Amino acid sequence: MGYTEFTIEGRNAVIEAYRSGKPIDKIFILDGCQDGPIMTIKREAKKHDTLIKYVAKERLDQMSETGKHQGVIAYAAAYEYAEVEDILAAAREKGEPPFIFLLDNIEDPHNLGAIIRTANLAGAHGVIIPKNRAVGLTATVARTSAGALNYTPVAKVTNIAKTIEELKKEGLWFVCADMGGTTMYDLDLKGAIGLVIGNEGDGVSRLVREKCDMVASIPMKGDIDSLNASVAAGVLAYEIVRQRLQ
Amino acid sequence: MGYTEFTIEGRNAVIEAYRSGKPIDKIFILDGCQDGPIMTIKREAKKHDTLIKYVAKERLDQMSETGKHQGVIAYAAAYEYAEVEDILAAAREKGEPPFIFLLDNIEDPHNLGAIIRTANLAGAHGVIIPKNRAVGLTATVARTSAGALNYTPVAKVTNIAKTIEELKKEGLWFVCADMGGTTMYDLDLKGAIGLVIGNEGDGVSRLVREKCDMVASIPMKGDIDSLNASVAAGVLAYEIVRQRLQ
Repeated sequence: MGYTEFTIEGRNAVIEAYRSGKPIDKIFILDGCQDGPIMTIKREAKKHDTLIKYVAKERLDQMSETGKHQGVIAYAAAYEYAEVEDILAAAREKGEPPFIFLLDNIEDPHNLGAIIRTANLAGAHGVIIPKNRAVGLTATVARTSAGALNYTPVAKVTNIAKTIEELKKEGLWFVCADMGGTTMYDLDLKGAIGLVIGNEGDGVSRLVREKCDMVASIPMKGDIDSLNASVAAGVLAYEIVRQRLQ
Repeated sequence: MGYTEFTIEGRNAVIEAYRSGKPIDKIFILDGCQDGPIMTIKREAKKHDTLIKYVAKERLDQMSETGKHQGVIAYAAAYEYAEVEDILAAAREKGEPPFIFLLDNIEDPHNLGAIIRTANLAGAHGVIIPKNRAVGLTATVARTSAGALNYTPVAKVTNIAKTIEELKKEGLWFVCADMGGTTMYDLDLKGAIGLVIGNEGDGVSRLVREKCDMVASIPMKGDIDSLNASVAAGVLAYEIVRQRLQ
């Protein structure tokens, strides 16, 4: 995909973008703001020759896509999607068996951001999302990823089920989260693995579920049906982390 | 606290509210809406003598606090906070050692809702939140809790650190999530336990951290600092579930 303009909102997100070397073209800062994080951003902006504009709160509010700009909005080149091959290469480079998240139509940008954040911290090598219907990499996703989007490659594919087929040839096993599966503690989740997370309302689609080698269930002791999608992704990802650490 | 009017938005949230016996006074449904979930809601409304009003989309959009009403908004009596004693009583009734979430200033209603949802499914007996600064039980919290707010008691206390002191007399141990602690897999998290989750930006406050018996760290393999607060709560809660199941 090509480059388009892309906003990064919030102090931590902007600082992280600088630290990770993301090219920022222009930065809007709340006029009169002088606190520590803003001073750090100003220093980084000068170091990187970013154009700084001081604007009123109303202007920032108007520009903000997330409604949570915290006094700073940066314009950067749009996020470039990675290829699935880049994710496998990242695993090879680290000498680790691949650990990939596959998101089967996550719709809420807060969930997508939180899941990319989890993927980064759980040591996954990348995240694969579908081209259609699901949410893409927006400013809200970048912000809720808390900077993880700068480090964790995200690839977009036409068909998740087909990608699973191809990755099986690379030796990956696939586990999806769904009700009626095996309790996650009883599965062997070590080795090269793809973790499949379904849609917020509908779960994993039938075609994708059929391609998975294992169906993992999170024990549910309560009265309602399911965890939030990003919480479920975190709980399963950390069961994989626990088994890998043993 | 007294009763005030309280909105419940979204199909699942309204259906769950009916199922759990919450008193709903009035319900607004998108005019012309005839699908399955809406028919279920209409049946429930008739059964419970709820006043139904059919309105245009613009009206619902205007009334909506969450922006995600899915064609239905219900007005119910305000959520009543529980007492800490009610939470302990719930554990006694089930014959289980108490398992309580304590939230040290969670500010984002989506996080609070997702954490109450997790608390319900992880089998916790209740959630304790502070009276000041933190977010309370709003319509957004009710919606993101996906109905869990109807089952899991939430108590509001003046001082989390003091509540920890009192609960220690009841035999509870306290673990908080923070960096620089012991890896969670190496801690003994069985038995009567309070899980303390800190603020989204600042983590657990110093006073509260000092009261905790254990500081648990989630293994972090990535480039950024921390998980989303509701994801961290989920990962830790399920480590407690895993140890309790052994």
